[in-house]
Amino acid sequence: MRADPDLHLLLVGPAEVADELIGALDPAQRARVTVRPVRAAVGMAENPVAARADSTVRTAATAVRDGLADAMVSAGSTGATVTAAALGLGRWPHVRRPALVATLPAVAGPVVLLDVGGSLEPGPATLARHAVLGAAYAAVAHGVVEPRVGLLSVGTEAGKGDRLRRSADPTLAAAPLPCAARYVGLVEGYDIASGLRADVVVTDGFTGNVLLKAIEGAYAMAGGPPPGGGAPRAAALLGVAGTVVVCHGAARGEDVASGIALAAHLWRRRATDTVSVLLGVPGGVGPAAGMALESSAQSGDHTERTTDTEVSL
Amino acid sequence: MRADPDLHLLLVGPAEVADELIGALDPAQRARVTVRPVRAAVGMAENPVAARADSTVRTAATAVRDGLADAMVSAGSTGATVTAAALGLGRWPHVRRPALVATLPAVAGPVVLLDVGGSLEPGPATLARHAVLGAAYAAVAHGVVEPRVGLLSVGTEAGKGDRLRRSADPTLAAAPLPCAARYVGLVEGYDIASGLRADVVVTDGFTGNVLLKAIEGAYAMAGGPPPGGGAPRAAALLGVAGTVVVCHGAARGEDVASGIALAAHLWRRRATDTVSVLLGVPGGVGPAAGMALESSAQSGDHTERTTDTEVSL
Repeated sequence: MRADPDLHLLLVGPAEVADELIGALDPAQRARVTVRPVRAAVGMAENPVAARADSTVRTAATAVRDGLADAMVSAGSTGATVTAAALGLGRWPHVRRPALVATLPAVAGPVVLLDVGGSLEPGPATLARHAVLGAAYAAVAHGVVEPRVGLLSVGTEAGKGDRLRRSADPTLAAAPLPCAARYVGLVEGYDIASGLRADVVVTDGFTGNVLLKAIEGAYAMAGGPPPGGGAPRAAALLGVAGTVVVCHGAARGEDVASGIALAAHLWRRRATDTVSVLLGVPGGVGPAAGMALESSAQSGDHTERTTDTEVSL
Repeated sequence: MRADPDLHLLLVGPAEVADELIGALDPAQRARVTVRPVRAAVGMAENPVAARADSTVRTAATAVRDGLADAMVSAGSTGATVTAAALGLGRWPHVRRPALVATLPAVAGPVVLLDVGGSLEPGPATLARHAVLGAAYAAVAHGVVEPRVGLLSVGTEAGKGDRLRRSADPTLAAAPLPCAARYVGLVEGYDIASGLRADVVVTDGFTGNVLLKAIEGAYAMAGGPPPGGGAPRAAALLGVAGTVVVCHGAARGEDVASGIALAAHLWRRRATDTVSVLLGVPGGVGPAAGMALESSAQSGDHTERTTDTEVSL
């Protein structure tokens, strides 16, 4: 609220948690906060598909769909957020599985890593679709020119990897990429922190998720991330018709703020619309009228928010 | 050679590469080096199963089997080393897939991570077997008391993960572990660098391999590993009847030296024998008479070595 004077928040969650947050703001800031009291939350251990229609995360997605918010941020169960966003906002055609996209500030520029938890067991076709998504996202959200796209494996020589990687490598090589992106073949774990070989690294959501957390842990052990670098605090969900950002379940206040800033950045760049057009989604996606931010009742940050950001970049 | 005066090396590889190495030693050190000239090497991009019987890596494994060396170190193709070791030395009963085991010096003590590339597509039974191997290795090689064993996944709540993890979790929970080890359930990427939740982290070889390299890359980006910490430079191969250490393909001289030191440490602790006894391998493994160290002709370090270490700890 302090960093972005044009931001409006719709808090979706238990009223008493919203009250606590509002109590910490000055009167001018309070005028930019709206509360939608919702009590039912999806637990971290619950089956995300069972997310009730009146839960916090479903309510936040509905607020975005109805134009009451421009984007949605959640620090709750990733599975529940992905499910709620897919159900509430709809998926793009040709995207069976939405992807969670994390951007790491690497030595040689930003590295877009996907998927980091949206689709735990993708097939080669989903990995190829995610390569297209990642290339478009790198260009649109981060201004990467002619993105280099790599497939994460255990070696760089063709044929290295498990069945999924061996099958996906030729599929990615044959996939037409937007934004003058090109496929550079297999890359390794080192390349994520360095960014030397690829701007976009494609992997399955299981590997991407544990990888991202391992890098975060390594930086924490090294006494903090390098200057201008580090692990991202939030990831964008691509493949649904709206701007959705996911913070991890252990997110602190500053992490959630970073997720809100990412959502505002993406919305102001019309990133979701632009990426969907680059992917050839028929008619694109109608411009979102509001921005919704959700963080789970499970994570100690029991808020769900909407921002009525109408500012453009 | 300088750091360990009791070390003998058998260099297995092209004679001219051995000559270069020997030329850098003083006369007393040269007396501890033997050369086995072998020209055929298995390329990084070659099918490891096709490793010829007269290749450097197969020759090194044979030297260990025949008692001409106590251990073997290779910085060549991991697949070729695993295959050569399994063929040349034999696998332990009940271990279908040998595991590559890396030890990371974490905040709360060493973390044993396995598999990091030995078995790219294990089933739940192999993961459970690796949990047993890892627990025994942590106790024997690193003196960890009552090791805590975790299964790497995308969350700590039961049910988090892909099909393999959901299936393996109860399998690991039911597996009897040696050395008073106990299974602590699912752990996350953070836990590898911190060591707070587990001393042994079990995962498939694909995930472990990219994870290890990603952590190494993160430390490199952070300006170097933390004091007393960092990524390991070599991994032990467990499940074959002999001491085998694998350095990665981009290993430099000091990395290979670190791998040789690990091999000597494991051999002096009789780690392979002790772990095999803890696993109930009938008759254990006969004491190795020599130590063999191999690094690939592909990695710029065209040597294959044997050490006649007879020193005990």
